[in-house]
Amino acid sequence: MKINQNYANLQESYLFSDIAKKVSAYQSANPGKKIIKLGIGDVTQPLCESVVAAMVDAARELGGRDTFRGYGPEQGYAFLREAICAYYGERGVVLASDEVFVSDGAKSDIGNILDIFCTDNTVLIPNPVYPVYVDTNIMAGRNILFMDASQSNLFLPLPDEALHADIIYLCSPNNPTGAVYTREQLKQWVDYAIAHDSVILFDAAYEAFIADDKLPRSIYEIEGAKKCAIEFCSFSKTAGFTGTRCGYTVVPSELCFDGVHLNKLWLRRQTTKFNGVAYTVQRGAAAVFTPEGRSQIKESIAIYMNNAKTIADTMTDMGMWFTGGINSPYIWLKCPRGYKSWDYFDYLLGELGIVGTPGAGFGTNGEGFFRMTAFGDAEETAQAMAMLKAAAK
Amino acid sequence: MKINQNYANLQESYLFSDIAKKVSAYQSANPGKKIIKLGIGDVTQPLCESVVAAMVDAARELGGRDTFRGYGPEQGYAFLREAICAYYGERGVVLASDEVFVSDGAKSDIGNILDIFCTDNTVLIPNPVYPVYVDTNIMAGRNILFMDASQSNLFLPLPDEALHADIIYLCSPNNPTGAVYTREQLKQWVDYAIAHDSVILFDAAYEAFIADDKLPRSIYEIEGAKKCAIEFCSFSKTAGFTGTRCGYTVVPSELCFDGVHLNKLWLRRQTTKFNGVAYTVQRGAAAVFTPEGRSQIKESIAIYMNNAKTIADTMTDMGMWFTGGINSPYIWLKCPRGYKSWDYFDYLLGELGIVGTPGAGFGTNGEGFFRMTAFGDAEETAQAMAMLKAAAK
Repeated sequence: MKINQNYANLQESYLFSDIAKKVSAYQSANPGKKIIKLGIGDVTQPLCESVVAAMVDAARELGGRDTFRGYGPEQGYAFLREAICAYYGERGVVLASDEVFVSDGAKSDIGNILDIFCTDNTVLIPNPVYPVYVDTNIMAGRNILFMDASQSNLFLPLPDEALHADIIYLCSPNNPTGAVYTREQLKQWVDYAIAHDSVILFDAAYEAFIADDKLPRSIYEIEGAKKCAIEFCSFSKTAGFTGTRCGYTVVPSELCFDGVHLNKLWLRRQTTKFNGVAYTVQRGAAAVFTPEGRSQIKESIAIYMNNAKTIADTMTDMGMWFTGGINSPYIWLKCPRGYKSWDYFDYLLGELGIVGTPGAGFGTNGEGFFRMTAFGDAEETAQAMAMLKAAAK
Repeated sequence: MKINQNYANLQESYLFSDIAKKVSAYQSANPGKKIIKLGIGDVTQPLCESVVAAMVDAARELGGRDTFRGYGPEQGYAFLREAICAYYGERGVVLASDEVFVSDGAKSDIGNILDIFCTDNTVLIPNPVYPVYVDTNIMAGRNILFMDASQSNLFLPLPDEALHADIIYLCSPNNPTGAVYTREQLKQWVDYAIAHDSVILFDAAYEAFIADDKLPRSIYEIEGAKKCAIEFCSFSKTAGFTGTRCGYTVVPSELCFDGVHLNKLWLRRQTTKFNGVAYTVQRGAAAVFTPEGRSQIKESIAIYMNNAKTIADTMTDMGMWFTGGINSPYIWLKCPRGYKSWDYFDYLLGELGIVGTPGAGFGTNGEGFFRMTAFGDAEETAQAMAMLKAAAK
């Protein structure tokens, strides 16, 4: 039996384990010292009441002889898909419920979607970026091109007409840079994709953090996008579902390559290799869209966005260059005084007890940059920023 | 962009939609007539109390500021993996918890495991069989060999030394035939796999239905199996989790091909393309292994096994040839009077209002056979069998 040799080309990521080791070493050396974690990409606010109540009710339903449910539809229950369609409708995006596929999370779908594409496609991925895009394509042996995200393009790379790519990854609001594409910029990508017969894989996992109404929260707000884009979204950051696992993928029915509708291919993939999401979890996810759920999740997002503002305002006050922090829970800053990413990490931890994420961990273009997240405790975030300011004086 | 052309080689399965259409047509034509469904592969008994209570508690935990949990380990929480190891331990199978990977179900893992194997491997699949094995390999463009399961080998094909296969699918208790391999038979497969450097994908989804202590419930009860086999199991049929979604896959640490440990490859696959199972669901699954949970799920299994006995005893009384029904929820019978599968389906539905599943739907060797399941209502199952007997007189 021959294994998939492409796995040998994967680079082990030691980013978070290296961070953990350094933090643990620091803690041993400084037992009394408090550490403030601004490095985590995980949510910290509890599930809202509506979601918990819906999951409790659903669990009890499954325990009743007359209300028990077995296999659900692989693509998700209609009650949830219709709620998602209604949510899109608010932004003027009309989706049919069979264009929405409920899954156990955006990460699964972003990896699994590649099943329906030939391995002989060229992939275009921003650098720096969420590492899953790169790794899943290395696993399949695809040719990968990188596009430079940098200070000069505000970490929002635009299409290069001279370059051909079949599969294009866009993430907006971006992880790790927090940068958000404008409508005009996304239109350039849609036009490029249509001209090049490419598909855009649009990761909208952080759309709920967009406060500015002029910024697009879905690529389908851009004309033509249904002809070239698949969109991934998630309840993870929107409603604290990182440990509850639910997301969704939109594959428009008009999305068609070589006469084959991707919606049908993806349905075939999902019905063959997936059996749907837990009924209890889908009920919880549907509760996010009720008026109570909407207002409750807004409270958590407001806490995070307030943290983001605290960090962003500090950066501004200190004259530090950064992206994100306004319509995103991530703040991507240029390390001061010419620090390299890991040196700045060591400085922040060693001098102030603050933990962030070195930008170099997200790709070569991340060197010299640093990610802070808004998912920490509000008081601690403010404390960390006060220390940062004081240390700079 | 080029799509995965292998999808064009998939045959659409109309099995269950064709059945649904025929049932619906019959119901329209015979509005007063009662239909008894013995065709479903889905469970019907509610989740047991222990599981519901654990899921309710877990949902509330996630709603608490101090008890909230975000991302869990991709491979599952230690509390569940350790409970699974203890369960294997009862049968003398010693597993380390990092050899167990918790997932959203056996179907997902059976499909996804193929990621870690080269597409240039030859696959050996029984005919008839659960269609997912075939379809997932067609999607990847692998060469498929079929092995004949038939009346002459009691639907338990054994290795053919003249044939080389890299990846071998075994399902025991089998879906759809209900046939169960003995230790001696599985030993032949393990020996073959080791001699041929093959990997066995062992689907143990129905292990909980094995009542006979002499029959193996895990392939790891066979010496040498840890060197050649991956095992898939599920809470779906064991504990009614078809709509709750939890399963697990065992990849022994000593399983090694070309110097590469499959456990490490699978961990890399799962950490890259999967984000773990809902915490609430994992708590529910762990409750299955508590003394109360164990005794509660036994009650449901006893109801199903009693149905299986009712059907099997009827077949025996009527002198009909069948496999399964004793250590399996499936009864695989030879259609009487030379009926073809679909003709017997039409006869049972048209004359008696009984719905089963035509064997031809599971592969060419299923022609002339028919599957009945034990997942129906006890009273209705008995009624159906009484009608069947009466009609034969």
